[in-house]
Amino acid sequence: MQAYCAAVDWGTSSFRLWLLNAQGEVVASRRSDQGMRTLASRDYGDVLESHLAALAAPVSLPVVVCGMAGSRRGWIEAPYITVPATFDALAANAIVVSGINRDVRIVPGLAQRDANKPDVMRGEETQMMGAFANVKGEMVACLPGTHSKWVRLANDTVLAFTTFMTGELFDVIGHRTTLQGEMHASQVHDATVFANAVSSMLDAPQTLTSRLFAIRAGELLGYGPAGVARSMLSGLLIGNEIATAQKCGIASGRVNLVASGQLAMRYRTALKLAGIEVSDSDADQCVVAGLWQVARLVFASPTKRKTG
Amino acid sequence: MQAYCAAVDWGTSSFRLWLLNAQGEVVASRRSDQGMRTLASRDYGDVLESHLAALAAPVSLPVVVCGMAGSRRGWIEAPYITVPATFDALAANAIVVSGINRDVRIVPGLAQRDANKPDVMRGEETQMMGAFANVKGEMVACLPGTHSKWVRLANDTVLAFTTFMTGELFDVIGHRTTLQGEMHASQVHDATVFANAVSSMLDAPQTLTSRLFAIRAGELLGYGPAGVARSMLSGLLIGNEIATAQKCGIASGRVNLVASGQLAMRYRTALKLAGIEVSDSDADQCVVAGLWQVARLVFASPTKRKTG
Repeated sequence: MQAYCAAVDWGTSSFRLWLLNAQGEVVASRRSDQGMRTLASRDYGDVLESHLAALAAPVSLPVVVCGMAGSRRGWIEAPYITVPATFDALAANAIVVSGINRDVRIVPGLAQRDANKPDVMRGEETQMMGAFANVKGEMVACLPGTHSKWVRLANDTVLAFTTFMTGELFDVIGHRTTLQGEMHASQVHDATVFANAVSSMLDAPQTLTSRLFAIRAGELLGYGPAGVARSMLSGLLIGNEIATAQKCGIASGRVNLVASGQLAMRYRTALKLAGIEVSDSDADQCVVAGLWQVARLVFASPTKRKTG
Repeated sequence: MQAYCAAVDWGTSSFRLWLLNAQGEVVASRRSDQGMRTLASRDYGDVLESHLAALAAPVSLPVVVCGMAGSRRGWIEAPYITVPATFDALAANAIVVSGINRDVRIVPGLAQRDANKPDVMRGEETQMMGAFANVKGEMVACLPGTHSKWVRLANDTVLAFTTFMTGELFDVIGHRTTLQGEMHASQVHDATVFANAVSSMLDAPQTLTSRLFAIRAGELLGYGPAGVARSMLSGLLIGNEIATAQKCGIASGRVNLVASGQLAMRYRTALKLAGIEVSDSDADQCVVAGLWQVARLVFASPTKRKTG
């Protein structure tokens, strides 16, 4: 079990670390909820070392990090690269964390510097590098999550992207509004309710905020099955995202979906309802693969390794 | 200063009481934040009596209440009346609060029992009674707020309505999401930013959830003036509501706006940008006028007064 490097996806709400061997295969892993939200800048080094120590990783083991740890509110800022940007530029612009006794590089995020469509991402660029490096031609990718990303790519280059607040809206609407009384984490996914909600948004995406209130009114007045509010809310928000991507010309006939688990299943269903063909990549595997790509480029030769 | 009755608007987050004379004029008033959210059912009677005592109101003074106090989670349920419903039906179906030493009536809310468009309101029906009783012909009313209502009426009858979660979304998106860092209660309203945000939604209401994230990305990347996120969020949500009302055929060439203060000003601006003519009614005055209408019908003759 010889580790070549550690790969870390360090987001707003979670920390995930993998030890990779010289073939880029995972040989050990750790995860925790020590995300940016819970950490001050000075905490990052200690948190990282505690997880590496738990895996008996030597101090010589280099680390590649992506995600919100590189934001201004994170560990140390890895300034955004402006799109269009190549995957190689991500590795070339990974920054070195100074003042610590280990070689740690943080992958920069991407910025779309367009006054009419300003946008940013951190983490998804690395997932895409894992999913699409060396894939030729143009494509559209959908990376669902707290801030869902729809991305246009061509030949290792990220051209443009659009963020939808889908996941975050699901969370705050479900937990912090009048609808919270209808929402329970224990609710089972209802595929029919979900599909109907998606379809209603494909027909009329602009009706989102009135459809939201109808979830509450419908339950109050006894329409439809009980206990399906989560599925309905999920369908409305995901359906709205996909319908908007279509209407704005972002979604084409085929979309490369980068997602995992339940979320992948729901987006696949909704994309198909919208008449869009889906190619799948597992988001968790993609982020490891992307970090591995960066590691290979950054740590490829001993001379590139940080000294001192 | 002879009071004829007390009128109470008892909402989710606030309590407002007015003493009215025999001409329906306000002779005294009280307000507090003792809304439904802070009260258990058993608390309502004591809260009401404490405010009446502060105004030296005799125990013989009857009270009319509208708003969430009449909901299932409030004081005592005043079951919804189904639309189409006349204003007279509101008074006729006001329920008597039993087990207390005072004549208190609660105005029912309205329900739209349509499986495709289920909807409910509590409080706005009384505002409309104050604003539109005895107004002849068909009209469309817009009552902005936590849950904005768009209502079709004809000759003292509420025909149909649609709720938008505009106010509540403004609150949770501004305080509970990634955008909270950009939002400050101290931000001055920026009329230009607001108008531009409204216009963007009139053009493409389906882009709401991506425009939300662009507020954050725009500030991060330094586009546009700083400190305008609240105005932008407000413009996006209000613009989305009006655009949707237009696209769904709810908004006609003229709308009767029932609102007060800042909110009235913003909706008036946004409605005009949408090419809609606006007639104004002050929401605060309307709710008092509506409660007075109910009081006159309910307490008009001594025989109608609750006994025992």
